[in-house]
Amino acid sequence: MASWESDQVSLDVQDYIKDRLPLVDAALEKIVPPAEEPPTALHGAMRHLLFPSGKRFRPMLAFAGAEAVGGTASDALPAACSVELIHTYSLIHDDLPCMDDDALRRGRPTVHIAYGEANAVLAGDALLALAYESLAEALTDTGPEALVLAIRDLAHAAGSRQLVGGQADDLDAAGDDSSVEQVESVHARKTAALIGASIVCGARLAGASDEQLAALHGFGYDVGIAFQIADDLLDEGEDDPCSLVTALGADAARARANDLLDEALEGIASFGEAAKPLRALARFAVKRTQ
Amino acid sequence: MASWESDQVSLDVQDYIKDRLPLVDAALEKIVPPAEEPPTALHGAMRHLLFPSGKRFRPMLAFAGAEAVGGTASDALPAACSVELIHTYSLIHDDLPCMDDDALRRGRPTVHIAYGEANAVLAGDALLALAYESLAEALTDTGPEALVLAIRDLAHAAGSRQLVGGQADDLDAAGDDSSVEQVESVHARKTAALIGASIVCGARLAGASDEQLAALHGFGYDVGIAFQIADDLLDEGEDDPCSLVTALGADAARARANDLLDEALEGIASFGEAAKPLRALARFAVKRTQ
Repeated sequence: MASWESDQVSLDVQDYIKDRLPLVDAALEKIVPPAEEPPTALHGAMRHLLFPSGKRFRPMLAFAGAEAVGGTASDALPAACSVELIHTYSLIHDDLPCMDDDALRRGRPTVHIAYGEANAVLAGDALLALAYESLAEALTDTGPEALVLAIRDLAHAAGSRQLVGGQADDLDAAGDDSSVEQVESVHARKTAALIGASIVCGARLAGASDEQLAALHGFGYDVGIAFQIADDLLDEGEDDPCSLVTALGADAARARANDLLDEALEGIASFGEAAKPLRALARFAVKRTQ
Repeated sequence: MASWESDQVSLDVQDYIKDRLPLVDAALEKIVPPAEEPPTALHGAMRHLLFPSGKRFRPMLAFAGAEAVGGTASDALPAACSVELIHTYSLIHDDLPCMDDDALRRGRPTVHIAYGEANAVLAGDALLALAYESLAEALTDTGPEALVLAIRDLAHAAGSRQLVGGQADDLDAAGDDSSVEQVESVHARKTAALIGASIVCGARLAGASDEQLAALHGFGYDVGIAFQIADDLLDEGEDDPCSLVTALGADAARARANDLLDEALEGIASFGEAAKPLRALARFAVKRTQ
């Protein structure tokens, strides 16, 4: 059994992430205006959650998506940066007083606490614009058609039928206990859509075929939902109304996450060795304990 | 003297706008999800300022930009819709309580008054994503390279170095009297960048040369600043600290707008007859009295 498949999996994933972090961090550092550039509060607010980096899970999925179809992390780099910019914008806006009203994220003040509410709204807006600008700027390295399709996929994943619509329904669900179907519909749009788009867009920039993209899309969707269940299991006891743990109980939720993971892995069985990092990242995301 | 150049100008412009409004309105109607589609409050909020239509000044500039280089309004339609979506998102977020805190726009409740603050933030976010998604969806009709460059230009115009940065500095200026340079820097980024991008992206989708694009970019910048001065002249007496009327007085501000218009028109003299609509729209925007 290869180490990716064994109990050593989390160690290997951490190596994979550690190897590729400098690539995405350096690119983001170049894309996002420096904090010293006026308007300094706006640019500081844009950088606040982006640096220092966390695991950069979505960029890693973009890299692994490219590698799964025979490409390299470098091929996927513009998509990797864009998904991280979109993810960061969504965290900033979700934390706003009119949304989840959170004062802390990853142990640090949220952007509106550190820079004020107007700068938090504007920083999110600017990160969203920058996600598309920086992807379009990759034109010299990537064929224009793959780039347009990646932009379309990412914008669709970020829009009212996916991420933003999921957040709207999540806010609406606050206070009510939601059904299993309602919870999964929110998680599909709020979490799984961008996770799926990360993998698909990474693979697109590496020249994936339509058949490969369809398989990766299905994989990303299942892994995205399972990832959200893993998050909810870690938050158990917080009594989130829009959580599969609340709707089903912890044991059934864990079983559902494992089923989704198995289904996801089966869907990309034909990718063979090239998809080992993608499989390992998925297992890591679903089985993590912190 | 052709009627575009005469005192009949505003009448002709109104005909031009009236002729082309159905094109952009029908396309926007198709692009933006119906208000009945869940989440209904989110989709209602996205449509609130978008329908019924105003003059659609930026889409008209995109059309006129395409016509100026020998294309048609249809060539520019995807860019025309995207600039209107970006403009509408910026109005929704600018009106928020943490920004300008406006309760009314065009005589109707602002989006956060009508749909709540969370839906207003999310509706703006979703319109911004939709601007790029719908432009990327035009791939079948437009060459992919022009599309990528149009996406890049629009995203740059919407980002922290242009529109969002201008809004951040505009908020910062509240309370202080700004210098002429500070005022024009805000207006260049907050207003002129998107007006310039409207014309340039319309022309891009109609196959404009780099030389033509450079001339149209300069034209759009000058007209955009002059347009903002015209706005400030109409708002005279409101004592906006970030206004050329406040900084220079009404007469000098009007003279500056006229100088910018002359400079703009001179810069596209070589476009001849094809740019008549563009010239007329610029004159109309700068000399309007309401």
